[in-house]
Amino acid sequence: MRIGGFAEQILVHQNSLAKISRDIPLDRAALICCGVTTGLGAVFNTARVHPGADVAVFGCGAIGLNVIQGARLAGANRIFAVDVNPGKLEMAARFGASDVVKGEKADPVRAIMEATAGRGVDFSFEAIGMAKTAEQCFMCLSKGGTATLIGLMAADEKVALSGLHFLAERKVQGCDMGSNRFRVDMPRYVQFYLDGRLNLDDMISQRIALDGINEGFQAMKAGKTVRSVVTFDI
Amino acid sequence: MRIGGFAEQILVHQNSLAKISRDIPLDRAALICCGVTTGLGAVFNTARVHPGADVAVFGCGAIGLNVIQGARLAGANRIFAVDVNPGKLEMAARFGASDVVKGEKADPVRAIMEATAGRGVDFSFEAIGMAKTAEQCFMCLSKGGTATLIGLMAADEKVALSGLHFLAERKVQGCDMGSNRFRVDMPRYVQFYLDGRLNLDDMISQRIALDGINEGFQAMKAGKTVRSVVTFDI
Repeated sequence: MRIGGFAEQILVHQNSLAKISRDIPLDRAALICCGVTTGLGAVFNTARVHPGADVAVFGCGAIGLNVIQGARLAGANRIFAVDVNPGKLEMAARFGASDVVKGEKADPVRAIMEATAGRGVDFSFEAIGMAKTAEQCFMCLSKGGTATLIGLMAADEKVALSGLHFLAERKVQGCDMGSNRFRVDMPRYVQFYLDGRLNLDDMISQRIALDGINEGFQAMKAGKTVRSVVTFDI
Repeated sequence: MRIGGFAEQILVHQNSLAKISRDIPLDRAALICCGVTTGLGAVFNTARVHPGADVAVFGCGAIGLNVIQGARLAGANRIFAVDVNPGKLEMAARFGASDVVKGEKADPVRAIMEATAGRGVDFSFEAIGMAKTAEQCFMCLSKGGTATLIGLMAADEKVALSGLHFLAERKVQGCDMGSNRFRVDMPRYVQFYLDGRLNLDDMISQRIALDGINEGFQAMKAGKTVRSVVTFDI
């Protein structure tokens, strides 16, 4: 974290290194940085989703998809995926979502409450960085449920939460890079991939050269890609 | 809970009974309902305050005072008490607050941040039921800190929380009667009193007869009393 760059050589403190298996191809290993690590860590470390829990995920970009597959790995029951982009909802289903909710059309909170017989979900995750979806995360919680806010919000953005809704022991918590201990968790996530438990292959929308990086950013901003991986020979 | 009344006899389910020591006088035992149980439970069960933690308590009524003495029992380091009523701050100091902050005069968040060298507190508690103080609870948290909202808010009241402030893994959680298991926790709190660890004596501002109950409510609303205990012969 905070040491990413395009240098061919770099001097870093030993604590900034995590030793991983040589068996994983580097274009796949490269994904286990922000997106995968944050998404899985939010589920395993920050929220500690347990088997049988119902989960809702707002935003199905790279982080949201990994929250979804993290919830699947944790043995969650229903996994609701919310997004406005139909392409992203398709990906969400491929990564383990049991229910997809088109966020623009219907009120996602209402859809989730109806689908759970008025109970709500045990865990919700915000993976966009918008106050509105953070508020929806809170409102679709069951009693005692926990909302985890992963998305980075603007400095002046305020999340308006009903005071009374907190009473039944609902929680809202922030999440910094999935609360990971990188040297412990990154090798573990690599192993998940090698064991066929983690889908990284479908996260790579395209492989590009460094020359194509601006087009890569454009495709990301247009919501057309999950990840564009820049490949080069060392 | 939800079975309080002035009946001389009552039929209740056995699960609604907690057996306590005969050694505690009943006027003291009567306090171990909402105020004491909620305040201590919020510290021990909901927030799980640990030794050495810095704590801030907003509102020093019956619940706030018991959050303060709960934090003292849990081995907290500094305990900041915030209230607008000087009489309540005096009580707060008697119940274990190390620092008192007059909430009206100074900005309590600023006072707490300055007193902790900009770090903030590990745990904060809202024991009034106001959005404004709930927001202050959140803003005076250190990285990774937890705000526990105990006070009952109006149905339409919204707590406006900075999205970015969540990032460093800060948490906000509701608290329902101190997350207590009453049959386990009430006898334990009675024992704390009998062992001289819990101050109940100073919570009783006056003992009144049932005839004086309206004056008792008036004194409570005027902020003159912690608790008026209605005594009568059985």
